[in-house]
Amino acid sequence: MAKVQSSSDMGVFPEKLDLRIPGPTPVPPAVLRAMSRPMINHRGPEFAELLGRVTRRLQNLMQTEQYVAILTGSGTAGMEAACANLISPGDPVLVLEGGVFGQRWGEIAQAFGARVHRYEYPWETGADPDELARRLRATPGVKVVFATHNESSTGVLNDIEALSRVVREAAPDALLVVDSVSGLGGAPLAMDAWGIDAVVSASQKCIMAPPGMAFVALSERAWRRVAESRAPRFYLDLAAHRRLYEKGQTPWTPAVSVLYALDEALALMEAEGAEARLARHRLMRDMVRAGLAAAGFELMVQERWASPTVTAVRPPAGVDVEAVRRVARQELGVVFSGGQGKLSGQILRVGHMGYATPMDMVGAVAAAEMALMRLGVPVSPGAGVAAAQRVWVEAGGARR
Amino acid sequence: MAKVQSSSDMGVFPEKLDLRIPGPTPVPPAVLRAMSRPMINHRGPEFAELLGRVTRRLQNLMQTEQYVAILTGSGTAGMEAACANLISPGDPVLVLEGGVFGQRWGEIAQAFGARVHRYEYPWETGADPDELARRLRATPGVKVVFATHNESSTGVLNDIEALSRVVREAAPDALLVVDSVSGLGGAPLAMDAWGIDAVVSASQKCIMAPPGMAFVALSERAWRRVAESRAPRFYLDLAAHRRLYEKGQTPWTPAVSVLYALDEALALMEAEGAEARLARHRLMRDMVRAGLAAAGFELMVQERWASPTVTAVRPPAGVDVEAVRRVARQELGVVFSGGQGKLSGQILRVGHMGYATPMDMVGAVAAAEMALMRLGVPVSPGAGVAAAQRVWVEAGGARR
Repeated sequence: MAKVQSSSDMGVFPEKLDLRIPGPTPVPPAVLRAMSRPMINHRGPEFAELLGRVTRRLQNLMQTEQYVAILTGSGTAGMEAACANLISPGDPVLVLEGGVFGQRWGEIAQAFGARVHRYEYPWETGADPDELARRLRATPGVKVVFATHNESSTGVLNDIEALSRVVREAAPDALLVVDSVSGLGGAPLAMDAWGIDAVVSASQKCIMAPPGMAFVALSERAWRRVAESRAPRFYLDLAAHRRLYEKGQTPWTPAVSVLYALDEALALMEAEGAEARLARHRLMRDMVRAGLAAAGFELMVQERWASPTVTAVRPPAGVDVEAVRRVARQELGVVFSGGQGKLSGQILRVGHMGYATPMDMVGAVAAAEMALMRLGVPVSPGAGVAAAQRVWVEAGGARR
Repeated sequence: MAKVQSSSDMGVFPEKLDLRIPGPTPVPPAVLRAMSRPMINHRGPEFAELLGRVTRRLQNLMQTEQYVAILTGSGTAGMEAACANLISPGDPVLVLEGGVFGQRWGEIAQAFGARVHRYEYPWETGADPDELARRLRATPGVKVVFATHNESSTGVLNDIEALSRVVREAAPDALLVVDSVSGLGGAPLAMDAWGIDAVVSASQKCIMAPPGMAFVALSERAWRRVAESRAPRFYLDLAAHRRLYEKGQTPWTPAVSVLYALDEALALMEAEGAEARLARHRLMRDMVRAGLAAAGFELMVQERWASPTVTAVRPPAGVDVEAVRRVARQELGVVFSGGQGKLSGQILRVGHMGYATPMDMVGAVAAAEMALMRLGVPVSPGAGVAAAQRVWVEAGGARR
């Protein structure tokens, strides 16, 4: 066990800690309170009612008519469920890889016996639909294409609608499987209309619930593939989940308390409405990008690919990004993420999804700026905040 | 989705519903409240401290010096982790099967490519150590023996200590893997002292926390097997869990809120102390058995094998057990389980583990008795309760 810093770093008000990481994200108090409800029988009528309601809310959020499996596990469990249910050993698959979560698709598919081809695109951009078309034509027989909707290791949002069109044209028999763990709810996604064959998401990102549950929805043709596929699976068997759902149950004991939280969080999302929610996420992204750039950070991703849920920046030249994170956390109570994989120690990532407002973005930018000041980096105090403020005013303000 | 009964069945005080099922079990208010704590970064120092503390508490509970992996998932996920990390395709394994959870070992092992041999013992008893020795000698080369500590589908407690001794003698190279999902904390288990190679448990039984986390501890020789085994695994990769634990982390985002609950629940268990806790479970078992027998139910399991955490009974001749459950639930707010697998519709199961007291047993017996009365079954009112009362007094009373 690594030596840990004292929790007194958090100051006297630990609940004031501002979690500005790309998940788990802060959970609204009403959602936290929902978990205090007493336990119920997961084979009883109250549970059936709850499961049915949460499932319908997730269908609504994913914009699908398909059944949505609710698994007790992290987003990675959802990704594994997609692989284990759709792959047979030896199947050629194509992974779109532009960050740590794209890499994860390849690792899981390989663990379950697929022959993995990779389209590696630069980590500062999304996947290019034309290049995907060329790759698919050059690799006949691909059974599954794995893509990342929102690559939270880089802050890139892929154009899934365009990529889906390409898959349908260039490889009509291939399934398109999309990780939208950090996208769903914060970036547009229309499973049925876009022709996606599998969407994977999870509870602890834009959905504002605690971690512990993953969601997997499959298209009709993906369900046919499940019936044929031969990778080993048991806990993550999606057909078992669909079968038990007919009885208002899950095959295994689910994280009932997290399901209470999910129900409450999805109700909050519905109350805000999809349009307002997506606009809020875009606004927060634009504030963070403008603010951090004005404070001297270098945006890693061009606007065209910029994620509405997480932003990655490089520190000003010569500045240790880990020192910036340390000051922000220890002295200001604002928690940023660092880089993952090959970006470890090189970037700072700011989460702006779920339970967050424009004022939280002002605070995040101010904290990053103050950390630079504390480290003696020559900055123009307030420049970052001013830039974020201007974005908000120009967007018409008025959003909570 | 099945049509569900109105939740008004629960009456005006839904939190008064008495969950007398073998898991998920009622959760103490302090444990429920622990889940209201704000979310934290699962890659930060507060989490490392929490994970380290919960891990040490679980080691204490399992009586092991070994690392205990904490997985986000149900007990079945823990069982799958044991299979996927210890089996290579083609491995001969022996499953001790005396109920639905024994059967589950066989199903998972088979899904992951093992050649499954089964020692099926009567569902009213535990596995016979002598017969196990014969089976092992008749089936050379068995790599893993899978056993169930407490078979919650039947209410049988196996003698794991004796079975372990037999495995060591008759098949020295075989690993003994034990499902103690519904046993750990309510029935004695000493992983290291008894020479068990893998213990699987979960949060929502005797541990009194909500469902959502499973635990797997492995012996040194089991860890060596992990290094050799070739079944596919990713989400449930135990080596990845152990590696990340060195940094105070889990490989994938864990159910942080459930971990808060676990920490609190394990603290409550430590405050009671192991001896008092095990005595309380035995006492509750004895009260339920005496009470239900006196009320006219037939005990399914002889005292020698009777589980301290769950009791299964058959209804008086001619009585529909599902009707008993329905009256108890709808009119009295007491929830019993029915039978699983081949016992479906034939038995009633009463959970008496975790957050439960002798007075809860009085209520459970009274409710079962009252349901019989409502159904017009000739019973002697109060006879069941009186028998349970006498057990308590004879045991010396005084236990809360």
